[in-house]
Amino acid sequence: MEDIHYTAQWGEGERWGDSPTDIGMARLALSDSDKLVRDWFMEKVKSYGCNSHVDEMGNIFAIRPGKKEGLPTVMGSHLDTQPAGGRYDGILGVLAGVAALRAVHEAGIETEYPIGVVNWTNEEGARFPQCMMASGVWAGATDVAQVHQIADIDDPNAVVKSELARIGYLGSTPAHWTATPLAAHFELHIEQGPILETSSQCIGAVEGVQASKWFTITVTGRDSHTGATNFENRSDALLTSAKMILRSHQVATQFSSLASTGLLSLKPGSTNTVPGVVNFSLDLRSSEDRNIDEMEKILREDFEKIARDEDVASINAGCTRGRGCTVSWKVDSDAKVANFDKECIECIEKGSEALFGQKAASLTRRMYSGAGHDSVHTSTRVPTAMIFVPCKEGLTHNPAEYCSPEDCGNGAQVLLNAVMRYDML
Amino acid sequence: MEDIHYTAQWGEGERWGDSPTDIGMARLALSDSDKLVRDWFMEKVKSYGCNSHVDEMGNIFAIRPGKKEGLPTVMGSHLDTQPAGGRYDGILGVLAGVAALRAVHEAGIETEYPIGVVNWTNEEGARFPQCMMASGVWAGATDVAQVHQIADIDDPNAVVKSELARIGYLGSTPAHWTATPLAAHFELHIEQGPILETSSQCIGAVEGVQASKWFTITVTGRDSHTGATNFENRSDALLTSAKMILRSHQVATQFSSLASTGLLSLKPGSTNTVPGVVNFSLDLRSSEDRNIDEMEKILREDFEKIARDEDVASINAGCTRGRGCTVSWKVDSDAKVANFDKECIECIEKGSEALFGQKAASLTRRMYSGAGHDSVHTSTRVPTAMIFVPCKEGLTHNPAEYCSPEDCGNGAQVLLNAVMRYDML
Ligand SMILES: NC(=O)NCCC(=O)O
Ligand SMILES: NC(=O)NCCC(=O)O
Repeated sequence: MEDIHYTAQWGEGERWGDSPTDIGMARLALSDSDKLVRDWFMEKVKSYGCNSHVDEMGNIFAIRPGKKEGLPTVMGSHLDTQPAGGRYDGILGVLAGVAALRAVHEAGIETEYPIGVVNWTNEEGARFPQCMMASGVWAGATDVAQVHQIADIDDPNAVVKSELARIGYLGSTPAHWTATPLAAHFELHIEQGPILETSSQCIGAVEGVQASKWFTITVTGRDSHTGATNFENRSDALLTSAKMILRSHQVATQFSSLASTGLLSLKPGSTNTVPGVVNFSLDLRSSEDRNIDEMEKILREDFEKIARDEDVASINAGCTRGRGCTVSWKVDSDAKVANFDKECIECIEKGSEALFGQKAASLTRRMYSGAGHDSVHTSTRVPTAMIFVPCKEGLTHNPAEYCSPEDCGNGAQVLLNAVMRYDML
Repeated sequence: MEDIHYTAQWGEGERWGDSPTDIGMARLALSDSDKLVRDWFMEKVKSYGCNSHVDEMGNIFAIRPGKKEGLPTVMGSHLDTQPAGGRYDGILGVLAGVAALRAVHEAGIETEYPIGVVNWTNEEGARFPQCMMASGVWAGATDVAQVHQIADIDDPNAVVKSELARIGYLGSTPAHWTATPLAAHFELHIEQGPILETSSQCIGAVEGVQASKWFTITVTGRDSHTGATNFENRSDALLTSAKMILRSHQVATQFSSLASTGLLSLKPGSTNTVPGVVNFSLDLRSSEDRNIDEMEKILREDFEKIARDEDVASINAGCTRGRGCTVSWKVDSDAKVANFDKECIECIEKGSEALFGQKAASLTRRMYSGAGHDSVHTSTRVPTAMIFVPCKEGLTHNPAEYCSPEDCGNGAQVLLNAVMRYDML
């Protein structure tokens, strides 16, 4: 807990309560504050006997040697946050790994094989709009050269590669699972949902993660005067986008899936000018890959019709038809459903038994994750599983995100137990 | 035309065609480029024998003395533009006034009473979101102390008063019709609609302007994770705003009126965070004041319901109901229907006859304006009327806005004719 609150100085966010630690985080990937927390991390893990290396995506691998040579079993997550995020999402997973290393180091334990901690770059996808970005490159899901060119959502000149270089974390090791191979990947994370809290349980053994696909949609109409242009003569890019956002929600409802828009910007931006261009993000999620495919197919067709100002599902009822807009799509990220490794999941359950004894059965549950995690990508290359701990009201991506010291502690202990068990398999 | 293209150097906008003058304007009110064009204006009118004074809203009154003392008949409009505006909206009216002064000066004409040109501050309401801002203060429709505190839409620290002082145009004369009284106000403007062009006419004698009312709507929900928060648990400020924008369009359609949203910003702004706060502009227009009142009443009720995620006009059909948001309204500006002065309108028609002779009847039409103008406010205090000239395809608030040199010239001549006639009444 000390490390969590101490390192929160780098990227302090919005205050949400009265206590000294009731302040959220705003530590965007590859920002100055991300550099500072990385520097702190490098020092800490060194003092616990680790050798660290940084790859060309800025992923940091801190490895503590074991009795034998071999692949390391790692605890990984991310130190970047949302622009209005909390103190636990990602951070808990990395700092619990650091605490585990300290425990092992201070107890003078020699593991069978190396163990370690990984800090993955830009898991959030908030600043550079591709979530789980650098674990995706490591896993070979995306191409390093392309990802290096992804730009800051607000600044086209700040791209991933230039920002990595600027903060001194553009490493030379290829960002690839063949260049830094791992034995297994365990990730502790807050649940980011209400299930554990509602059921009064405290450990989730995560079996998998739903699929997500991200798009940037551009709607192009024509700037015109709001007082002098009647509805028939408009090509209103914002009204059109509003209909598309509504439609994506309807379609996701049909598929028991999710569709969300978190970014929207328009041009030229004046009360009395009908916007000529709108860009918005579309984030589709589902527990089944084929739902994503089908929703995308339907929405591509429906957005075309909405852009042409044709009616779709009565969305145009009561509206005046205008001259229409055009619409284009860009895929920003694409992650299939992830299924985690049976042995790793069992190590977590055994790790919970070691902590809670007989009560473990009622305090632990198997579950799925709604949010994406770096483990989605590692699971395609190495045995992977995740541990969830409760977070208050399921609230996350919000400054008031909260995980109690007890729950953080339980999670960290189960993480260490699981890693030690896997190391001895 | 020379002055129009010469002064376009201050606030150059987007290029839209190949010719050297096919470049739009971006001269936001009280910006550095607004200062430069004001400085140019001050010099020019001085050289044509005018005395100028600036009031505490930065309105510039350039007055050329006549044979007798008395109130001046003025030609007024504005030199500020939209962020992606054209070379004619507002600018034509001021520079035609300057050209009229030059013609009178070079011909050595002494008018009966003083005549002059007024440059009104921030007519566009693009940077500071109150249109016809400073003519409104002059007319007593709004209060100078309040208006001085209106902030730049992008920078809360740049308010009207501080920006007036910064560019050196915070005058000492009270901004009030009693402090700078006028005999009459004539305004030449591009039509900003297609009527004159479609009917092959070239002069509009404007009888009045439709009403407009501007609001900033704030929708407050709760930031949450797009992957981990199901629809039932969301308070999605953007989805809610999308429904409101759609609803405003439906209601305006029912009233044969207009509703438009040209600004929208959201927080926190991340692909995977459901927005917790959205601000958007709402611009209502109608040819009847009571339509504005009724639309506002209906929308205030409907937005409440939409915020609570209740259904309104089937807008929620097919949507999953969430936890709801709250909504609040701020009025930014409010202008009633304007009806112009009979004598002034007749001066314009006579001015057109003087230019076109027998053809004037078929080339001139009486008409109403969809866009607001400074004349809306002056008309509440002094005899006022406007002259419209055609603009290509009715396009305006767009870099490609275009008015031919012939039409600009005709408009300027009719403006001068009307002023000379009024001066002799
Ligand atoms: N865990 C988490 O918040 N990850 C961000 C990536 C996502 O959007 O799911
Ligand atoms: N003429 C003009 O574009 N005025 C701006 C004020 C308005 O929005 O009507």
